[in-house]
Amino acid sequence: MKKIWGDYSVSPQIHKYTVGKDYLVDAKLIGHDITATIAHVHMLYAIEVLTKEESNELKNHLQLLQKQVENESFAINPKIEDGHSYIELFVTEKNPELGKKMHFLRSRNDQSLVMLRLFMKEQLHIVMEQKNSLIKTINNKQNKHKNLQLPGYTHHQKAMPMMFVDWIGQFKEGLKEISPIQHELGKMIDSNPLGSGAGYGFAHQSIQPDIALTSYLLNFKSMQQNPVYAASTRGFYELYVLQQLHPIMMFASHWANDVLLFSMQETGFFSLPKTFTTGSSIMPQKNNLDVCEIMRANEAVYWSKIEQIHGLISKRTTGYQRDLQLTKQPFIEAIELVKDTLTTWELLVKNLKVDSKKIKGAMTDDLFVTHQVNDKVLSGMSFRDAYIEVKQGLEGQK
Amino acid sequence: MKKIWGDYSVSPQIHKYTVGKDYLVDAKLIGHDITATIAHVHMLYAIEVLTKEESNELKNHLQLLQKQVENESFAINPKIEDGHSYIELFVTEKNPELGKKMHFLRSRNDQSLVMLRLFMKEQLHIVMEQKNSLIKTINNKQNKHKNLQLPGYTHHQKAMPMMFVDWIGQFKEGLKEISPIQHELGKMIDSNPLGSGAGYGFAHQSIQPDIALTSYLLNFKSMQQNPVYAASTRGFYELYVLQQLHPIMMFASHWANDVLLFSMQETGFFSLPKTFTTGSSIMPQKNNLDVCEIMRANEAVYWSKIEQIHGLISKRTTGYQRDLQLTKQPFIEAIELVKDTLTTWELLVKNLKVDSKKIKGAMTDDLFVTHQVNDKVLSGMSFRDAYIEVKQGLEGQK
Amino acid sequence: MKKIWGDYSVSPQIHKYTVGKDYLVDAKLIGHDITATIAHVHMLYAIEVLTKEESNELKNHLQLLQKQVENESFAINPKIEDGHSYIELFVTEKNPELGKKMHFLRSRNDQSLVMLRLFMKEQLHIVMEQKNSLIKTINNKQNKHKNLQLPGYTHHQKAMPMMFVDWIGQFKEGLKEISPIQHELGKMIDSNPLGSGAGYGFAHQSIQPDIALTSYLLNFKSMQQNPVYAASTRGFYELYVLQQLHPIMMFASHWANDVLLFSMQETGFFSLPKTFTTGSSIMPQKNNLDVCEIMRANEAVYWSKIEQIHGLISKRTTGYQRDLQLTKQPFIEAIELVKDTLTTWELLVKNLKVDSKKIKGAMTDDLFVTHQVNDKVLSGMSFRDAYIEVKQGLEGQK
Amino acid sequence: MKKIWGDYSVSPQIHKYTVGKDYLVDAKLIGHDITATIAHVHMLYAIEVLTKEESNELKNHLQLLQKQVENESFAINPKIEDGHSYIELFVTEKNPELGKKMHFLRSRNDQSLVMLRLFMKEQLHIVMEQKNSLIKTINNKQNKHKNLQLPGYTHHQKAMPMMFVDWIGQFKEGLKEISPIQHELGKMIDSNPLGSGAGYGFAHQSIQPDIALTSYLLNFKSMQQNPVYAASTRGFYELYVLQQLHPIMMFASHWANDVLLFSMQETGFFSLPKTFTTGSSIMPQKNNLDVCEIMRANEAVYWSKIEQIHGLISKRTTGYQRDLQLTKQPFIEAIELVKDTLTTWELLVKNLKVDSKKIKGAMTDDLFVTHQVNDKVLSGMSFRDAYIEVKQGLEGQK
Repeated sequence: MKKIWGDYSVSPQIHKYTVGKDYLVDAKLIGHDITATIAHVHMLYAIEVLTKEESNELKNHLQLLQKQVENESFAINPKIEDGHSYIELFVTEKNPELGKKMHFLRSRNDQSLVMLRLFMKEQLHIVMEQKNSLIKTINNKQNKHKNLQLPGYTHHQKAMPMMFVDWIGQFKEGLKEISPIQHELGKMIDSNPLGSGAGYGFAHQSIQPDIALTSYLLNFKSMQQNPVYAASTRGFYELYVLQQLHPIMMFASHWANDVLLFSMQETGFFSLPKTFTTGSSIMPQKNNLDVCEIMRANEAVYWSKIEQIHGLISKRTTGYQRDLQLTKQPFIEAIELVKDTLTTWELLVKNLKVDSKKIKGAMTDDLFVTHQVNDKVLSGMSFRDAYIEVKQGLEGQK
Repeated sequence: MKKIWGDYSVSPQIHKYTVGKDYLVDAKLIGHDITATIAHVHMLYAIEVLTKEESNELKNHLQLLQKQVENESFAINPKIEDGHSYIELFVTEKNPELGKKMHFLRSRNDQSLVMLRLFMKEQLHIVMEQKNSLIKTINNKQNKHKNLQLPGYTHHQKAMPMMFVDWIGQFKEGLKEISPIQHELGKMIDSNPLGSGAGYGFAHQSIQPDIALTSYLLNFKSMQQNPVYAASTRGFYELYVLQQLHPIMMFASHWANDVLLFSMQETGFFSLPKTFTTGSSIMPQKNNLDVCEIMRANEAVYWSKIEQIHGLISKRTTGYQRDLQLTKQPFIEAIELVKDTLTTWELLVKNLKVDSKKIKGAMTDDLFVTHQVNDKVLSGMSFRDAYIEVKQGLEGQK
Repeated sequence: MKKIWGDYSVSPQIHKYTVGKDYLVDAKLIGHDITATIAHVHMLYAIEVLTKEESNELKNHLQLLQKQVENESFAINPKIEDGHSYIELFVTEKNPELGKKMHFLRSRNDQSLVMLRLFMKEQLHIVMEQKNSLIKTINNKQNKHKNLQLPGYTHHQKAMPMMFVDWIGQFKEGLKEISPIQHELGKMIDSNPLGSGAGYGFAHQSIQPDIALTSYLLNFKSMQQNPVYAASTRGFYELYVLQQLHPIMMFASHWANDVLLFSMQETGFFSLPKTFTTGSSIMPQKNNLDVCEIMRANEAVYWSKIEQIHGLISKRTTGYQRDLQLTKQPFIEAIELVKDTLTTWELLVKNLKVDSKKIKGAMTDDLFVTHQVNDKVLSGMSFRDAYIEVKQGLEGQK
Repeated sequence: MKKIWGDYSVSPQIHKYTVGKDYLVDAKLIGHDITATIAHVHMLYAIEVLTKEESNELKNHLQLLQKQVENESFAINPKIEDGHSYIELFVTEKNPELGKKMHFLRSRNDQSLVMLRLFMKEQLHIVMEQKNSLIKTINNKQNKHKNLQLPGYTHHQKAMPMMFVDWIGQFKEGLKEISPIQHELGKMIDSNPLGSGAGYGFAHQSIQPDIALTSYLLNFKSMQQNPVYAASTRGFYELYVLQQLHPIMMFASHWANDVLLFSMQETGFFSLPKTFTTGSSIMPQKNNLDVCEIMRANEAVYWSKIEQIHGLISKRTTGYQRDLQLTKQPFIEAIELVKDTLTTWELLVKNLKVDSKKIKGAMTDDLFVTHQVNDKVLSGMSFRDAYIEVKQGLEGQK
């Protein structure tokens, strides 16, 4: 099959190897591609490249496709390569002459950039909402167990009493603390890359796209005037966004790992409802917290997506290279992981059961040894002397 | 929906989060699962747990499913969780009472292990065959350009003449040199994990599976007698196999990167057929070697699969944990990448065009400066004096 | 040798293995440890645990040690384990009874945290200053070559003209764009972890440290009230700070890689002064840009520090564990890399030589093909028709 | 300061940035560099470039330096750049005219390669010896506790009985199983890279080094005839060797993590001697297994060295580039980690104390539930029916 950009057939093996799963990936992004294409078409009319009628007809075709996308009644054939070709072919089938006019003053490069930018904005917003909801849920949980003390451990050994509100509160603190940074990140990526074309813009051409207009239509706060920079944000923004959201996955993993430890038969401080657990195919007594293990594991999966994107963009030189295509899939998968993890985590926090009796039984004397030291200091002994006296007392007991 | 192992319904969100894409992943492994299940059923008959008739009927059902798998006329519904459940449900639907007898003396854990082990053996064999074919193709290419000299570079600057046979030969050497290690790897993983059950075997039970028999039926060279070790190879073998094959991806990436550099307009030593190149959506003059960029990039993707599996198994404790489920997908994807890359690489080597004229023009004097130094040494000068004399001569010319 | 915390001798091999290089690492942090210790001592006086005289004497000893640190006239013996022990032993040697009183109401855990926090604040400030200086230098370079056009590449093939100001400007944009995020990061980490003790605080004890006072004395903007969260920032902040600064290393690597490509004999657009290059031990003609290769490579080294810290803190459970000790070294090394790279990069930008003649020679016709397409569109042809007409024209020429 | 290869002074900042810590790193490799240099000098005599007297004098100087290295009575000044320069300068100071003759027919590139190759061979041998010793120690431990049963866990929940011999045996199996691969690795790297010069050999020169002779003198089993391949093993062999040894670190980490879990107050199955533990600076009751945490953590550190080397060599093009210099440090550090870990691990295995009483108390009924199911099957019930009947019985008890 011929490409939109070519008059020859590409070798099937080369086509298969270079396209990979891109046609599947683009199915998740094509809605944003259409949105940006509608803005582009409107802009072409505004700068008098298209007539009002042409522009309206193109928009109608694009909106029709948008509907199909919303209803999931479409599929990108791997022969069609990707979403950009799919859109252009769809319009061209409706009106061959008009379809040929649409790709003027943009390149597949800035088309990808803007599509991804819109996706990032949307997803970042969703993640922030989910995060705020989780923070509230943790808050409610804290209010329910205000004075509960658990054993606090260091080096896997009992250390001192730990307040339940502090234990679960640590995740709230972490999630809240990174919000201003994530907010700034939102502002940073809210910038229109259209007009960068193939990475070198149109300033040296006899006609330029009206970027201010597409920025307005697509609701971008700013625009990227330097086309070379716009092009080099490909992959970089994906990496940076995932790094900024990584603490969420890390906190979830830490939380899940704590719950696993505190739900063993040997501790038993926490449990989850039976419908949240899974059984064994051969051991009837089991109620396993697989969900916590998957949550812990998903941090590792997420991190490998960061590493994948990093590996793809490292040692780059200026100018688009096909390696960058492969950054889309890990980015989308990682964003899905964050969202699924936040949903699940909130559900788990809500349903976490605390076994006060077991906890009380675990509040053994060794957790209060430092209290003795401190009390001796208040009675006038130096700290080190008090420490040694208490220590010798403990060893005498053995 | 109820699980095979449970009498309660798992919360849909927990089900979705823990199953993830496992049902899709298992579709690629289920053939091996069925093969091992047939051997398991035969063994249950041999130890007199099943009658001959029961065993034969079960095998018939399993072979029917095997056919459907071969024809790709099946799909694992996400509600069914994974391939193991799919097989048991399939058989149980055919004969409910008989289906209930099949899972005796094994667990889903050793079932996964054996399915993956068979997959590994098969795939490793395919990869070795492909590698040998590529080695022959490189050999042929060397024979075609026996005396061709190219510029050799160090630090991205011209250094000395490089023989074409040495350039392309380096990849052959690398691929050959790792063969004995990969051969030993093949022997190491050719070991039957069945009988390890849930990770603690059946030695403490009143009946044991006959592992020698399943090893024979499944053509394994040895068996893993320590069930705890068998269980802890999960994830570890996946990691180790991918590490052993990594040089293939690394050499391919290095080769592709060289070709990209040597096909720039500024060098022009090499080119590929037009049908192997891709064009630009806005620049009519372009014939890009995207295929080489994807080949370079796929090494990064492959490496991230290694990192993912490593991340999942690191800091493990003894005993199966659900984190390990997530090692299947990156393993399969990585193996697919190696095979696709070898196929593509061989095609590229075969079709690489060498532009002798451009190369001759690039064999400039600076590549032969060390010859002058060496000749002076042969005439009796010390090496450092010769080096300095030649250097000063060069600077005089500027 | 006995530990400050023990009455028994630790096995030498265990001591060696657990201490590792920690005594060397702490030599770079001890200054901040002393600063925080002085504030701690003052606080102990304010809450009437120490007398004014005791507090003053301790401060004198600590300031004496601070001087020795500034003059680098000290060394931490590996037997002493780390900087915390070194300080306590130093003071205890001066006045044994007084030394024993100093470690009250803090633990080595919050002591490490505050020392690292002060280091982070200081270093982040330095890096931001260096970054701003580099931005100015790039700006000056842009002003020198306002209208210079270079070949712009995509897929390693000539694409369109690229403005020099856009090429070098992309690095300026990137460095500037991340500033608000780094500024927020500065605010986030400007928080006092003292009072978290061993990770569970002192709220359940009969006496508490005055954290508001130490925050004031150490110039922290806020304090971490939840001791469990304070403890879990160990390692997390190190990771997060390095991730936030990673774009600097990535841009430097990208810049260096471009310069390497554009300084090959085949391109020759750029060069660096001879005193910035290195020669070969056997090839007299060589002037290699090793510095750019090291700059490119240092991004990989930096990234591995991120991965190291991530690996150390992943799958943690609540409560200090010794794994965290090992996060100090990669953090310090990574910060050193950023600073050295910024210094070197600025020097290179300042001294980058542009060869306008070579560049002009490289501005070949193929860079202007898209101009023809666009001009045809302006004359009324549809974009795709124009594209195909130009393409066919090019192929006719061959 | 002038370089051996130059007649100009390199800018101090550029020198500092490019040399980095190379002068420190080379101090650990210089012994092998001298060994190879002695062989090189002998070969120069054999091919009549040096006289017998010259060769003997050079060898004497080199042996003198070798002694200083063995006594650690030397230090490479950072101004001298690296070990290669140090050796040449040392000899040149002894006899200026003779020193100038030594570097003929080799380059710093093959000099580095052979030095690293000798180091690899030596270290691989040491690691294999240590590994075999550890295997014996595990064996002894197994013999001491032949029939001991512990609780076996899956999903952090009690599952079935686990034999102690199987638990500790899993590490023995893993260590043994990878031996044939490591043995093949030893053969693969036992190959002489000398003669590859700057990466393009000397075949095109008027004189060639006698590689068969240096191979014999340095006890190499084979030689690398393709100079381009020899050069491209730089970094690749380092990566491959570390990957092959990685299972050792992974098993150690897994072992340590198990011991941490099984030494908590809540389990108490294992303990280590008090002199292997560390205390707390404020909690007198603590005896922490920091050594196990460091062992677990060192796997993460080791892995980051693999990632660092991978990052440095990825996306390479043919021909030496300075990035490769930075692979030496992580390689040496990783090898040190393996050796220290094996020493420590063996000490810990020897001294691991088993608390049979606590273990007996932990062998609760739930570990034997699967036995009931299996017994019902033996009495004629189908497996699934037996499973469900036992499960319902358990739930009735609650």
